[in-house]
Amino acid sequence: MQSIENSKILILASQSPRRKYLLSQAGIQFKVIPSQVDESTVPMTSPESYVKILAERKAQDVARQYPENYVIGADTIVLLDGTILGKPRSRNEARQMLTRLSGETHQVLTGFALCCTARSYRYSDAVKTDVRFKKLAPEEIEWYIHTPEPFDKAGAYAIQGLGTFLVKSINGSYTNVVGLPVCEVIELLLKEGIIGLNGPSRTFDETG
Amino acid sequence: MQSIENSKILILASQSPRRKYLLSQAGIQFKVIPSQVDESTVPMTSPESYVKILAERKAQDVARQYPENYVIGADTIVLLDGTILGKPRSRNEARQMLTRLSGETHQVLTGFALCCTARSYRYSDAVKTDVRFKKLAPEEIEWYIHTPEPFDKAGAYAIQGLGTFLVKSINGSYTNVVGLPVCEVIELLLKEGIIGLNGPSRTFDETG
Repeated sequence: MQSIENSKILILASQSPRRKYLLSQAGIQFKVIPSQVDESTVPMTSPESYVKILAERKAQDVARQYPENYVIGADTIVLLDGTILGKPRSRNEARQMLTRLSGETHQVLTGFALCCTARSYRYSDAVKTDVRFKKLAPEEIEWYIHTPEPFDKAGAYAIQGLGTFLVKSINGSYTNVVGLPVCEVIELLLKEGIIGLNGPSRTFDETG
Repeated sequence: MQSIENSKILILASQSPRRKYLLSQAGIQFKVIPSQVDESTVPMTSPESYVKILAERKAQDVARQYPENYVIGADTIVLLDGTILGKPRSRNEARQMLTRLSGETHQVLTGFALCCTARSYRYSDAVKTDVRFKKLAPEEIEWYIHTPEPFDKAGAYAIQGLGTFLVKSINGSYTNVVGLPVCEVIELLLKEGIIGLNGPSRTFDETG
């Protein structure tokens, strides 16, 4: 898939290597320009509106600087029994989070937004996925928190990395758990005519 | 995670780059030695026993040549309404398969086996995942079958490639759909003491 016009070249307003990977592997062409949004200023009403507002703020922050371009913003949170699990600030916090997640089903919620300043275009939505962890032995938790992986991840794990062994099953969108619901995002980009299915070149040579 | 003894270095009896990627990203150390099993000679009783027998034959084919090593074999099939969808042999077959999968839920079944000749060890199991496709427009199918991706894949799609946009949601193990149920495989390797959670070095530096 490809951008129909150069002015429509997509921007991903996220420095997450996981989001970049997801869009790239799906054959989408885009540039990465991280947003500078202060997440602490977003009001917490419901989890759904929180991730949608934050995704929109991230997208708009970059969209203002690149008014002609369409910009994707996203935010992912982990919910256990209605409580948000953030990024662990210590090994101890990571241990506590993983102990709580062990053997349980939690939710991963990703808000995504698409904005274009010149066209006064704003769209946002949120997708939820259930994730069931295996019952973890204490040694498995200890092993995992002695890797660097849990410390920049909401809920103290990565489903696509070393943490693959933690996840027994999911119900919903997998890419949503990684950080961006690709099926929904591509559906939106096609609907808005931002990417197309025809054209002189395709990107599959790089990713197929 | 790492092999406890050198003699226990794992072998993956598959040339699938997807299975290699799944085990690598989970931090497992192994060698790849593809099997030479003729898949057409495996009897089709039930889908579960078919993938288990085929996974075992693949593992044993390599285990015989490396009697001291533990060998993993695997086979993945796609089932729609109880019928197996193989690898499409033409663009037309790929179009037909994707048209049938569009908007429906199908099953991906992966059999995996672990064998060690010197220890007379044999284990096999099968894991099933439900996969729900989005409703595909004819242009989306045309676009996809004009990429190389569908043609070496059971069911004519790859959940982790360009085909990410096809999949609305799954219920079960994601890695099972890619080609190997990593959570179950690692659980087995830990239980059998083939990999360990302690040791002088870890592999997370490469993959984290």
